Amino acid sequence: MTRFNQPLGGNEMPRFGGPATMMRLPAATSAQGLDAAFIGIPMDHGTSNRPGTRLGPRQIRDESRMIRPYNMATGAAPFEHLQVADLGDVPINTFDLKKTVDIITAHYREVLAHGTIPLTMGGDHTLTWPILRAVKEKHGPVALIHVDAHADINDTMFGETVAHGCPFRRAWEDGCLINDKVFQIGLRATGYAADDFDWGRDKGWTVVQAEECWHKSLTPLMRLVRDRIGDAPVYLSYDIDSLDPAFAPGTGTVEPGGISTWQGLEIIRGCAGLNLVGCDLVEVSPPYDPSGNTALIGANFLYEMLCVLPGVPQNPSRFSGLAF
Amino acid sequence: MTRFNQPLGGNEMPRFGGPATMMRLPAATSAQGLDAAFIGIPMDHGTSNRPGTRLGPRQIRDESRMIRPYNMATGAAPFEHLQVADLGDVPINTFDLKKTVDIITAHYREVLAHGTIPLTMGGDHTLTWPILRAVKEKHGPVALIHVDAHADINDTMFGETVAHGCPFRRAWEDGCLINDKVFQIGLRATGYAADDFDWGRDKGWTVVQAEECWHKSLTPLMRLVRDRIGDAPVYLSYDIDSLDPAFAPGTGTVEPGGISTWQGLEIIRGCAGLNLVGCDLVEVSPPYDPSGNTALIGANFLYEMLCVLPGVPQNPSRFSGLAF
Amino acid sequence: MTRFNQPLGGNEMPRFGGPATMMRLPAATSAQGLDAAFIGIPMDHGTSNRPGTRLGPRQIRDESRMIRPYNMATGAAPFEHLQVADLGDVPINTFDLKKTVDIITAHYREVLAHGTIPLTMGGDHTLTWPILRAVKEKHGPVALIHVDAHADINDTMFGETVAHGCPFRRAWEDGCLINDKVFQIGLRATGYAADDFDWGRDKGWTVVQAEECWHKSLTPLMRLVRDRIGDAPVYLSYDIDSLDPAFAPGTGTVEPGGISTWQGLEIIRGCAGLNLVGCDLVEVSPPYDPSGNTALIGANFLYEMLCVLPGVPQNPSRFSGLAF
Amino acid sequence: MTRFNQPLGGNEMPRFGGPATMMRLPAATSAQGLDAAFIGIPMDHGTSNRPGTRLGPRQIRDESRMIRPYNMATGAAPFEHLQVADLGDVPINTFDLKKTVDIITAHYREVLAHGTIPLTMGGDHTLTWPILRAVKEKHGPVALIHVDAHADINDTMFGETVAHGCPFRRAWEDGCLINDKVFQIGLRATGYAADDFDWGRDKGWTVVQAEECWHKSLTPLMRLVRDRIGDAPVYLSYDIDSLDPAFAPGTGTVEPGGISTWQGLEIIRGCAGLNLVGCDLVEVSPPYDPSGNTALIGANFLYEMLCVLPGVPQNPSRFSGLAF
Amino acid sequence: MTRFNQPLGGNEMPRFGGPATMMRLPAATSAQGLDAAFIGIPMDHGTSNRPGTRLGPRQIRDESRMIRPYNMATGAAPFEHLQVADLGDVPINTFDLKKTVDIITAHYREVLAHGTIPLTMGGDHTLTWPILRAVKEKHGPVALIHVDAHADINDTMFGETVAHGCPFRRAWEDGCLINDKVFQIGLRATGYAADDFDWGRDKGWTVVQAEECWHKSLTPLMRLVRDRIGDAPVYLSYDIDSLDPAFAPGTGTVEPGGISTWQGLEIIRGCAGLNLVGCDLVEVSPPYDPSGNTALIGANFLYEMLCVLPGVPQNPSRFSGLAF
Amino acid sequence: MTRFNQPLGGNEMPRFGGPATMMRLPAATSAQGLDAAFIGIPMDHGTSNRPGTRLGPRQIRDESRMIRPYNMATGAAPFEHLQVADLGDVPINTFDLKKTVDIITAHYREVLAHGTIPLTMGGDHTLTWPILRAVKEKHGPVALIHVDAHADINDTMFGETVAHGCPFRRAWEDGCLINDKVFQIGLRATGYAADDFDWGRDKGWTVVQAEECWHKSLTPLMRLVRDRIGDAPVYLSYDIDSLDPAFAPGTGTVEPGGISTWQGLEIIRGCAGLNLVGCDLVEVSPPYDPSGNTALIGANFLYEMLCVLPGVPQNPSRFSGLAF
Repeated sequence: MTRFNQPLGGNEMPRFGGPATMMRLPAATSAQGLDAAFIGIPMDHGTSNRPGTRLGPRQIRDESRMIRPYNMATGAAPFEHLQVADLGDVPINTFDLKKTVDIITAHYREVLAHGTIPLTMGGDHTLTWPILRAVKEKHGPVALIHVDAHADINDTMFGETVAHGCPFRRAWEDGCLINDKVFQIGLRATGYAADDFDWGRDKGWTVVQAEECWHKSLTPLMRLVRDRIGDAPVYLSYDIDSLDPAFAPGTGTVEPGGISTWQGLEIIRGCAGLNLVGCDLVEVSPPYDPSGNTALIGANFLYEMLCVLPGVPQNPSRFSGLAF
Repeated sequence: MTRFNQPLGGNEMPRFGGPATMMRLPAATSAQGLDAAFIGIPMDHGTSNRPGTRLGPRQIRDESRMIRPYNMATGAAPFEHLQVADLGDVPINTFDLKKTVDIITAHYREVLAHGTIPLTMGGDHTLTWPILRAVKEKHGPVALIHVDAHADINDTMFGETVAHGCPFRRAWEDGCLINDKVFQIGLRATGYAADDFDWGRDKGWTVVQAEECWHKSLTPLMRLVRDRIGDAPVYLSYDIDSLDPAFAPGTGTVEPGGISTWQGLEIIRGCAGLNLVGCDLVEVSPPYDPSGNTALIGANFLYEMLCVLPGVPQNPSRFSGLAF
Repeated sequence: MTRFNQPLGGNEMPRFGGPATMMRLPAATSAQGLDAAFIGIPMDHGTSNRPGTRLGPRQIRDESRMIRPYNMATGAAPFEHLQVADLGDVPINTFDLKKTVDIITAHYREVLAHGTIPLTMGGDHTLTWPILRAVKEKHGPVALIHVDAHADINDTMFGETVAHGCPFRRAWEDGCLINDKVFQIGLRATGYAADDFDWGRDKGWTVVQAEECWHKSLTPLMRLVRDRIGDAPVYLSYDIDSLDPAFAPGTGTVEPGGISTWQGLEIIRGCAGLNLVGCDLVEVSPPYDPSGNTALIGANFLYEMLCVLPGVPQNPSRFSGLAF
Repeated sequence: MTRFNQPLGGNEMPRFGGPATMMRLPAATSAQGLDAAFIGIPMDHGTSNRPGTRLGPRQIRDESRMIRPYNMATGAAPFEHLQVADLGDVPINTFDLKKTVDIITAHYREVLAHGTIPLTMGGDHTLTWPILRAVKEKHGPVALIHVDAHADINDTMFGETVAHGCPFRRAWEDGCLINDKVFQIGLRATGYAADDFDWGRDKGWTVVQAEECWHKSLTPLMRLVRDRIGDAPVYLSYDIDSLDPAFAPGTGTVEPGGISTWQGLEIIRGCAGLNLVGCDLVEVSPPYDPSGNTALIGANFLYEMLCVLPGVPQNPSRFSGLAF
Repeated sequence: MTRFNQPLGGNEMPRFGGPATMMRLPAATSAQGLDAAFIGIPMDHGTSNRPGTRLGPRQIRDESRMIRPYNMATGAAPFEHLQVADLGDVPINTFDLKKTVDIITAHYREVLAHGTIPLTMGGDHTLTWPILRAVKEKHGPVALIHVDAHADINDTMFGETVAHGCPFRRAWEDGCLINDKVFQIGLRATGYAADDFDWGRDKGWTVVQAEECWHKSLTPLMRLVRDRIGDAPVYLSYDIDSLDPAFAPGTGTVEPGGISTWQGLEIIRGCAGLNLVGCDLVEVSPPYDPSGNTALIGANFLYEMLCVLPGVPQNPSRFSGLAF
Repeated sequence: MTRFNQPLGGNEMPRFGGPATMMRLPAATSAQGLDAAFIGIPMDHGTSNRPGTRLGPRQIRDESRMIRPYNMATGAAPFEHLQVADLGDVPINTFDLKKTVDIITAHYREVLAHGTIPLTMGGDHTLTWPILRAVKEKHGPVALIHVDAHADINDTMFGETVAHGCPFRRAWEDGCLINDKVFQIGLRATGYAADDFDWGRDKGWTVVQAEECWHKSLTPLMRLVRDRIGDAPVYLSYDIDSLDPAFAPGTGTVEPGGISTWQGLEIIRGCAGLNLVGCDLVEVSPPYDPSGNTALIGANFLYEMLCVLPGVPQNPSRFSGLAF
């Protein structure tokens, strides 16, 4: 069809067969020549409540099997413009969280060296910190769009500095972020102090709590976000628990009152035009959703991220034109 | 109570007992004398991803046991105006999909000969094509309200013309549809080409993608639909995967970003006043929702279809009258 | 930290360990000295369809383990203002529903004698009637905010006056309610007569059916509710099946088209300023949601009720201030 | 085929379709003319731990759909010798256990009046007492083969005489049993006193604890049982929790160390030649086995009971004749 | 380590990561150079009751991730003696069962042409017939060890000759089998006639019904089997439903009273020394065992088959030598 | 009743209510005065495949609610002879496995200082090493009965010395074990070398592989074990994955062909008379058995351990005395 890798189609192999790679794309062992790559980080030793995200990459890949190459809403055709592959998993050390963090940074340093944009399948949210360290080495500080139920800015958890509640505190300490271009969307529920979320605000971050998102489209919000970020390099970190548990039951630190998949799609699609240099989708915990639907949504969201990478044109559908 | 069949009530037999027919209505072996009939088509050999819809009719009937005779929102009282029964299942050939298609057409030809309106419990979406063939024999071409995540207009799947992704292409080829009175609502996600949905548009169909439905009531849309359809005979085909997986996890080809049950109810209730000649509710896959809730929603949607059939008056509730 | 009981924190004991009390609060055996208390009523012999609510209190407590002390949206800090504990379960008679009703009233009479506000974890909805009897002895008739899919005003079920479909009929007969300050929110689906919900309306109750709530915030509704109730004592009875099954799959008498958790939170938070004298959260059925998420939402809703009790100041978050 | 009712075969209707009666047999509304009848008692208000048996009859019927008419081991062909039907459910009062007991006795009095042998699908074990009362009226005291993890001979539970832990105490008090022909098989685990099981022994009952059954065939035991019972009328009461939870996970009061399905089949088949006047299979709790396998085993055990009723010849298979 | 392909070890990549191939072996696209190959056939359109086996190969591969290279009981070290890979899936036609049969035969003809022994992951049992056709072309008629709950020798099902209940009838008609070297083990439950299993016996087949296997080791049986088969080429077809549902809940046509995994392992290990030319493991249905354990057992059984292929020495463990 | 703590009985509080402590015993905060204590170690960061054992202690306690005080087979009445309580959980550091190990040793040092026998609820098997270190400080080297699918004697896993596959290697290095009194029972499946299990044998340990246990009672084995151990202090470490997955599906590193619960009970009961100084039950993973049955079996096994502690007399039941 084109000169780029293509997902294996349903007319060549039934959807429930074929390789269990992301979207049934070819597997690659090096980022060489890739514009973008799906990478798994199978870990859950950073989680503080329910475990299971170690199995996230396997189930996301499995449930990605239905995704076809064209985006029916945005007209994006990523496989006509980018060379994409599934780069497999990072060989994390499941018995030592601190060593894992360094393994991840080293792994991404190598991927980024090829100019490849990583699309990461988590795994727990601890992983974003070591990725951001590697991203900073390559691109300098970046803007951040962080969609989550939690701020993940704890100084420590149980006395530890490495945990899934701390990555953005660590990234900030490491100078990975452009503070006035940091957006946290979907935060909610309960905290250890009433002003927990103000820590970021005091650094210049914009925190959009879930309650501000209820009952409305987030497309206007993303317009504001794009205006503020401009052409700075941007990292998108999407925690599946930003979604209300109705939409994403299979995760570990569930909080009611989250955003919907409609809004999640508006956020990701609203990133079109930004200079995205990396994305992740974290905290899918398969044991808590045996239907596989949470992973399936995660897979689709990763595909949607691919669709808004630099170099992929947007050609929105004709839609109905009806006024209702 | 009345001269018509009544669902077995909870004061005569606990809800969790009694016959496992639809709404615990009497079973019938012939359509003779019935104004409307629930019919099961237990099949899934037309599915391309997850299976399980073969068990849909059994679970829909089981979970229909709580439905009481009166509609609290619309005031509809179908069992005071129509003779309704559960006509059992079509004896499909589970080893041969093509033969199954002809079995279905023959079965519905017989039902329609009695002037009975069929309310079909699927089963996978392949079944709508053979039903529409029988409907055309009786009523000529019909208007279509098709609620779905997918257009189901593929020319072939894996080289085959009979599959759950093809029924509306086949129905169009067979002249079953009035093209300017065809509405496809809820379509979304990914395709094999960016303009997949335009095939129908080019035939004069109205395609309302899911994105157009987000964050709003569909009652205004249904007003437009009714205006366009007028008094033409109409077939309503409701694929449960039109709903976002949050609302209907138990189905086979899940796509995020779908419509809500609020909107689904608005669509069906918005059919009141139309000349409905047949309805179906397809793609409930019990193994993917052990709670039974997806089937329960399917059962309620089938009841709501019964409530808008010709001959059933609408007497909306007093509601609260509060302005908020 | 303060002089009041505090939930055991995640930095002292991992979230998945520690006592399985509500929010890992201290257990108490007497209400003496408590401003508010969580109490379980493990029963399901009042249910008419699916069972399982007998296990509700255990799972609600288990899944409450993640809830931290501060409310990030409202700024409420209940444990700085109230002495709260987990009072354990009422020793109901699982083989005799009528005796159970009297056990509950006696139990709550004792709790209320200490001036403690009970926050009840159900259990099926039958329990609200015996609680209201005890509340009336203490406070006289009360205003009622009743959030539910069902009116629960049946005269009898299967000839019995004690069942989960009857509590508010019984409470009305016993003079427990101030009729022009009764609000039923979220009612929907099907009934035994088209005017079932009008029984309450005819007594002066305000019935807000689910359809009136779709696609909008309920904050304005709660303003009307607060205006009407004024400073009368109020009881809040929250049936988890008021929520659409997407948001609360784990319950027994599921009806599609319910309210969302966004709206549920708006209702509870909208009670701030009222003179709440008791609250309950009923009908969580663990076997129908093995993920535990329905119980987790129930636990959070109970926490939100605690946050709006008299004596707990509201200090809403700074939020983002963005106009979108 | 024969002059008797036949189960609907898989060549006429796919196994996953057709009526959800036991073995897809015809439904009957009267026992008139029936040699044997399957009857459901959908109840769980007698259970003391996990609920759910109220849904047992529905799931047993659903999962019975694969059972074909001939017994491949014993050669029994019950539908060539007996007129059998599904008599539906007893309309129990789910809000009042004591009334339910009387409803059951009255119901079975009527069935037994027709000379029909009832094969009961439970429901919790409370039901055996009221059945035995009706059986005694018809046949006088009977021998009993009671397979269970528990003795079910408590004087009271929570002060109540009607509960699923008491039926055989009540039946003994009512003189329903021939004490030296009572066999309790599979008892085990823990009790309120170390000699709980000796209560029956002191009445002359034979108690075969599970430990005595481990690692061996129970065919020799059944020879002893048959010798002792002779031609007295016998009632067989089979509690699915007699099986180790490996074999029957879907039940409410699980005890490890139970018998296997191999032994369960040996017990039932070992009843061939006895004068069986009634049988039951109780305590299947669907919510605790979403696979349906526990119900499927229950359905097969009920079929095996049918295969050993008086009037059904045994013609064991040729088997292989290999000595190994 | 050796010159042959090795499974990816847990010290190089966590078990829950890495490629989702069988045992995390290298994927291959041609059988060229392979002594043995794992092949998936993702199909379920031959099933007559519950579906789901189309997902069997994916889940078997996923759950194979824990299997290490050495067999601790038999000492077999297959990866020191054989070149093995995962050959991926056969691109079956999911909408046409008859075409699928021919696709399979063609696919295996190609594999067998390379002298590769296929180890097939099903998929439903229909697949054994087309494999045996290809095997016959290569090796002539073969001995057969068929472990199953069912004989699978129906002439037709629902009038069709291709279905999962017919493969061995078809294979016999096609002359694929050496009749006096055919063994069917584990058959049981119910049939359409009391002598269903005698059809094979009348052809010279040995049928060992499940009842003959209860309470004993099958090692002696396998000695008899090996004696009878001698050095004829043998095909081993293992239906997971031969196991009692306690051991393999995740399958579609469940029958109680089956063999244990202890016996299943004895059967497979008892094939050591035979001239195996092909093996399959069929009927794993993932939706009916969300734990994955049934697939995990299937994966281990496939590994055990690999361990008894010609060319793999057996070096039994030292064991304890205790006499007990 | 007696002067010792008693489990809360079902006649005082329904089984599904009351405190979620082990057997609904009183909670204690110090071991002072306790003869034995149940202690939870909620951890899974030592697991190498599926996670979830962090939730083991919570679910074991929850499912222990049915256990009554008397052992019906052995007549043991532990609560008449021992002061027992639930000591709560060890506050492990979920983000650092190595620190967790030291936390555990310190915690048990304190418990053992009171002369209390710890009965540990895991948690993954890593925990046995730090417990054995504390045990050695108190008692010197001990005999060991280790029931497991795996030897857990790896030198390292992924280069780490602390992991759930290494505890007995570490304990051996630390001189915690009396080598000729070490018994490993139930080992099986696959390894990294054919002689993996010989490492222990070479130290003098007795390794009884699962295959040696099939089809027989283990009572004779335990006689040999008791003879060899004599009156040395003994530690019993029971990994639930020693059981075949049929009996214990809810665990993380599943291997087919394990022992049965019948044999598991024989092993534990066979410890009566030994000088037990500590016991554990590890590797219950709740997310992999939503029914709770695996935890329930674990709870019962822990109770059986309590029943064989020094000071608890054994008074076996009268049983039936039948010869069959």
